[in-house]
Amino acid sequence: MSRVEQRLSELGIELAQPVAPLAAYVPAVLDGDRVWVSGQLPLVGGELLAKGLVGNGPGSVSVERACELARQCAINGLAALRSVVGDLDRVVRVVKVVGYVVGEPGFTGQPAVIDGASKLLQEVFQDAGRHARSAVGVAGLPLGSPVEVELVFSVSPA
Amino acid sequence: MSRVEQRLSELGIELAQPVAPLAAYVPAVLDGDRVWVSGQLPLVGGELLAKGLVGNGPGSVSVERACELARQCAINGLAALRSVVGDLDRVVRVVKVVGYVVGEPGFTGQPAVIDGASKLLQEVFQDAGRHARSAVGVAGLPLGSPVEVELVFSVSPA
Amino acid sequence: MSRVEQRLSELGIELAQPVAPLAAYVPAVLDGDRVWVSGQLPLVGGELLAKGLVGNGPGSVSVERACELARQCAINGLAALRSVVGDLDRVVRVVKVVGYVVGEPGFTGQPAVIDGASKLLQEVFQDAGRHARSAVGVAGLPLGSPVEVELVFSVSPA
Repeated sequence: MSRVEQRLSELGIELAQPVAPLAAYVPAVLDGDRVWVSGQLPLVGGELLAKGLVGNGPGSVSVERACELARQCAINGLAALRSVVGDLDRVVRVVKVVGYVVGEPGFTGQPAVIDGASKLLQEVFQDAGRHARSAVGVAGLPLGSPVEVELVFSVSPA
Repeated sequence: MSRVEQRLSELGIELAQPVAPLAAYVPAVLDGDRVWVSGQLPLVGGELLAKGLVGNGPGSVSVERACELARQCAINGLAALRSVVGDLDRVVRVVKVVGYVVGEPGFTGQPAVIDGASKLLQEVFQDAGRHARSAVGVAGLPLGSPVEVELVFSVSPA
Repeated sequence: MSRVEQRLSELGIELAQPVAPLAAYVPAVLDGDRVWVSGQLPLVGGELLAKGLVGNGPGSVSVERACELARQCAINGLAALRSVVGDLDRVVRVVKVVGYVVGEPGFTGQPAVIDGASKLLQEVFQDAGRHARSAVGVAGLPLGSPVEVELVFSVSPA
């Protein structure tokens, strides 16, 4: 078992098959020594874990829950990554994360939400998991998801 | 005529001069073996093909129409790409697409809209056109456009 | 003093320490010959220069002011860049800028706002500052900022 797979196992994380794209694209592209992962939703077994707006209102998705959703997005991103690199030990660096959050009007807690993805990446890859990031509030996401995360990785040759 | 130009011709697509940037930037940057194309709007002859929100409401832009707009964005992106690489046969891979969609409140059909761009890229480049992608709903776009598409390509040396 | 630092000095710009990330990520990542800079807010001395929506309404942030905010985002991006490359003369090209703007409903002036960042980059790097760009309107940003700017640079070896 590879070092990173071992770490995932310690964290109790099992990578599924990469989530099938919703449309005419692929989960990830290996481009030389870089992997571009498509925007990931918090899907498990084909089901979205939550829908709606992030915020404090009744019926909204709490920041704590949205943070867990972002973590699931990152896990799905690792599955997509693995589908093109085979061995996750090839990861040299998590380079870039963009996190999109659908909040209630006036919501400004995007960083706390996307930390769910960022912390997972650092738990898995330690120092190599420290990435550049943008976190922005958007008007809507596919399937009504409250969160979407896209990733760029630097990888070593096979 | 290059292979890709031939394919565009078969699809009935003629590339115009790249759309002049709306502001202080350039249509595309050649960066080693990668080309970064600026966000493209559905402009033809300097005119936006449609304005407004994507959705089913009266006066809104339908998903079908928005899909055509996304296709035009991708075509404009190819013109921008050609302006920096000269020969479109230098394209090794369409690496990444980000699609921005301005929808009615609650709109979640971003993937179907951005498929207009993704399918055009696959029609033109076949397997090399299969890309990573994010599709998100935004609050507004330049000129009131319902759609904007940005692209990253991997290219071979001149 | 390096050539670019000299140019910054002529422009009356002093780079501070990079703005500490709001969460679990880093200001910038050096990835081979490319630097990915995290989304930058218009912070000076830890304080956001303005909050709110960009537009003409009472209490809104004017386009002119938002343009200055975007310029500050770019300046903060240069500080983040410098923290990983040491010498700003290593910049070969400003490759890509993405600008996020929180506007009033119906706001479409994103390009004019993000020009504040684009023009600063061209003042500093001249031709090497001409970049690909996307400018989009988003629903909200961290801390209530009206503007966020992320950047990608191509750099020469140390």
